[in-house]
Amino acid sequence: MNWKRKDLLGIEELNPDEIIHILDTSISFKEVSERPIKKVPILRGKTIVNLFFEPSTRTRISFELAEKRLSADTVNFSTSGSSVLKNETLLDTALNIEAMKIDAVVVRHSGAGIPHLLAKKLSVPVINAGDGAHEHPTQALLDMFTIREKKGKLQNLKVAIIGDIRFSRVARSNIWGLTKMGAEVFIVAPPTFIPPYLANMGVKIFNSLDEVIEKVDVIMALRIQMERQKGSFFPSIREYRQYFGITKERLKKAKKDVLIMHPGPINRGVEIDPEVADGKNSVILEQVTNGVAVRMAILYILLGGSPTHASQRNGAIGRRTGGKRI
Amino acid sequence: MNWKRKDLLGIEELNPDEIIHILDTSISFKEVSERPIKKVPILRGKTIVNLFFEPSTRTRISFELAEKRLSADTVNFSTSGSSVLKNETLLDTALNIEAMKIDAVVVRHSGAGIPHLLAKKLSVPVINAGDGAHEHPTQALLDMFTIREKKGKLQNLKVAIIGDIRFSRVARSNIWGLTKMGAEVFIVAPPTFIPPYLANMGVKIFNSLDEVIEKVDVIMALRIQMERQKGSFFPSIREYRQYFGITKERLKKAKKDVLIMHPGPINRGVEIDPEVADGKNSVILEQVTNGVAVRMAILYILLGGSPTHASQRNGAIGRRTGGKRI
Amino acid sequence: MNWKRKDLLGIEELNPDEIIHILDTSISFKEVSERPIKKVPILRGKTIVNLFFEPSTRTRISFELAEKRLSADTVNFSTSGSSVLKNETLLDTALNIEAMKIDAVVVRHSGAGIPHLLAKKLSVPVINAGDGAHEHPTQALLDMFTIREKKGKLQNLKVAIIGDIRFSRVARSNIWGLTKMGAEVFIVAPPTFIPPYLANMGVKIFNSLDEVIEKVDVIMALRIQMERQKGSFFPSIREYRQYFGITKERLKKAKKDVLIMHPGPINRGVEIDPEVADGKNSVILEQVTNGVAVRMAILYILLGGSPTHASQRNGAIGRRTGGKRI
Repeated sequence: MNWKRKDLLGIEELNPDEIIHILDTSISFKEVSERPIKKVPILRGKTIVNLFFEPSTRTRISFELAEKRLSADTVNFSTSGSSVLKNETLLDTALNIEAMKIDAVVVRHSGAGIPHLLAKKLSVPVINAGDGAHEHPTQALLDMFTIREKKGKLQNLKVAIIGDIRFSRVARSNIWGLTKMGAEVFIVAPPTFIPPYLANMGVKIFNSLDEVIEKVDVIMALRIQMERQKGSFFPSIREYRQYFGITKERLKKAKKDVLIMHPGPINRGVEIDPEVADGKNSVILEQVTNGVAVRMAILYILLGGSPTHASQRNGAIGRRTGGKRI
Repeated sequence: MNWKRKDLLGIEELNPDEIIHILDTSISFKEVSERPIKKVPILRGKTIVNLFFEPSTRTRISFELAEKRLSADTVNFSTSGSSVLKNETLLDTALNIEAMKIDAVVVRHSGAGIPHLLAKKLSVPVINAGDGAHEHPTQALLDMFTIREKKGKLQNLKVAIIGDIRFSRVARSNIWGLTKMGAEVFIVAPPTFIPPYLANMGVKIFNSLDEVIEKVDVIMALRIQMERQKGSFFPSIREYRQYFGITKERLKKAKKDVLIMHPGPINRGVEIDPEVADGKNSVILEQVTNGVAVRMAILYILLGGSPTHASQRNGAIGRRTGGKRI
Repeated sequence: MNWKRKDLLGIEELNPDEIIHILDTSISFKEVSERPIKKVPILRGKTIVNLFFEPSTRTRISFELAEKRLSADTVNFSTSGSSVLKNETLLDTALNIEAMKIDAVVVRHSGAGIPHLLAKKLSVPVINAGDGAHEHPTQALLDMFTIREKKGKLQNLKVAIIGDIRFSRVARSNIWGLTKMGAEVFIVAPPTFIPPYLANMGVKIFNSLDEVIEKVDVIMALRIQMERQKGSFFPSIREYRQYFGITKERLKKAKKDVLIMHPGPINRGVEIDPEVADGKNSVILEQVTNGVAVRMAILYILLGGSPTHASQRNGAIGRRTGGKRI
């Protein structure tokens, strides 16, 4: 396809063809990660700046690995949550860094919409690595990639998303993506975790996992973000586990080939039992593996031109797997 | 020219030929930053350690990019201001790092003279990235590069440096450089901001921007460093802005082609109006762009041998632009 | 030799042939660090993650340089001591990072046994960069490398290890290594610094440096780790220096060619006089230099296959120096 966007800011704005294009491109990059020498020269001489205004381990390392495997130079800039940057200063910082002739910015920020603000002002691609409770598009894309790889499709699948929807950018991005791709999304959460905007997002809402567990193809647990919860949205961990925990007992009622997913880090024994997290239905670590591939694909699409041209240019990706349509 | 210095510690010790040599060499490196593949193999296999004992975003990233674009390996070492290192320990740290066979040290420290101390003890080049209120030589060199690029010369230009002179290593380094290169420097600041040593530096002193604005070719604003000011050196931001702010009204009185400069980060609405900072006379972002080129040139001169040899050795810089004499 | 271990966790588990193999392999890598271009392509396309859960400057930089000189990609992950990670979470973090298809993990942690825990769960090599008061195997290997290089052998040498044995992983690893290699180890420390397990480690114990100084070939001082001492294990710095300090007066009683060693960072004037630390018997900075070579050798052995094959494969190490047998 002829990719037109400068940035990757959210799943909300993508159309199904764009999502498919990213997922298809990711297939080749997953194959790169499985080689003994996991490096292709596609972005040699390009510089990518990782601006992380929120603490992050996994996502930052995943992006950094994606960048290095594409042979880009990377520069990291992290601030602790304590040093609050006003938006205007943030923008000046970004403009300054752009003036150093860098080629892309990956940004994580606690403020919803910050990546969009930067994207408007910068001429280089901006990639949203998570903005507040708004979107986390690369997470949703790696989730969709994982589901599609395992199930062969996304359309008509039944996907339960469980837990802390109100504070979850992962949930939002996945709801946008999965519904666009024709999956049926069941939200399972305590009423206090259900944000008002859900009503318009084409999902069905349930207040107990038992109501849906028998019919879903995928169960995606979210992390209970203890640190974000100022009020008391639920009475106790024990009660949460009783209605929403993916326990090994509850799993027996599910389809034999149900996929268990979690964006990490897991609160073992809260959202999910250790036996389930490490069990045969779990694809949690495969999500992580796929994350690097999907991020490589996104950087490649935004920075490297169309796959065909790049492939001809340097023969680096190797055998094209051919976009498997879902 | 035949470069003789091991280190770049300050502008005070450079002679005009050395300054010109750095500025001339920077021209080629600026051209590298404008290529699609912004990388030359000049310092491949060399290791540069960035020792930042003061928080820094821009300068650290600028040096890191310069090093990576020369294909050097970089190692970063930063400590927060809280972990105070005694000089002896600092020296032991530096000697230890040198023993790992690294090729250069870039150092920023809140103590004036620390880079000089390290330079005396280490056999590898030491580059001063800012020491206390003493010098910030790479900033002055990028400022002179920017002025020379825009005006075609430095000699006989009238340059106003405005603001927080007392605490400004940027001002000190620029005063040394600009006066050596034959420019006329006007210091514009409240009396409490004027340090005693200025009297011997060959500058003229004014207490209001309006006294000089009509005749200057360059206006260089300094950052009001709120954090360094323990006492009350000026009554209020409003009063400061009234006499020293580069407001859009005041700019109307200046020459049509006056250059507006600032080392960043800007306090918008204090030292400078947003309209001026983003206006057509502003070269603030070009300063940032040039900073990478000037730092590449310095690393190259100190680590890579003479330009001619390097060029022959690896043909990496490409077309030599020929030192344009000011 | 045919190397069989996946990990380097401690010296306790190594046999003399394995130690010799590492020391022999380090010779070639020391030679690499002395070239103008200190880089070999042996680990190109491999990714090494440095997980530092304890603050560290020297060891982290030494590993990072070793990795970069082997052309590996490196990713750093450091947490301050304040953010306590429970073991289970730590393991999840490590499994996640492994799922990103990285090739080795270097780990430092305040908990003894953490590297062993990770090694059991991860399929990639794990290298212990210091675990609590347990082991610091790469330090002991670089110490043995340095002694062997200077003395031509380890067997039958008399080595005094002085000071804070109780809290010292450096001491433990060196005791294991030196006794395995046939050296005689004298522990010199206040009684409160002698841990009970020493009785079974084949060393002799003394309570004053003067008892052994005339007969030893090597004096290895340990750092007094002020920060780890909750109780009062010794009356005063002055008293410590009196019985255990390597003063310039005391040094006169030692053999002319005694080696003075210290793992750093030095408390000058406490464990060791500045004149001694910087004097002609001191090999303290050579230890640091050798540290990079030994770490390159370990990474190479664990990740790169046998030296002969690698050498043939890419001709990268250059002239093989031939394992000098001790």
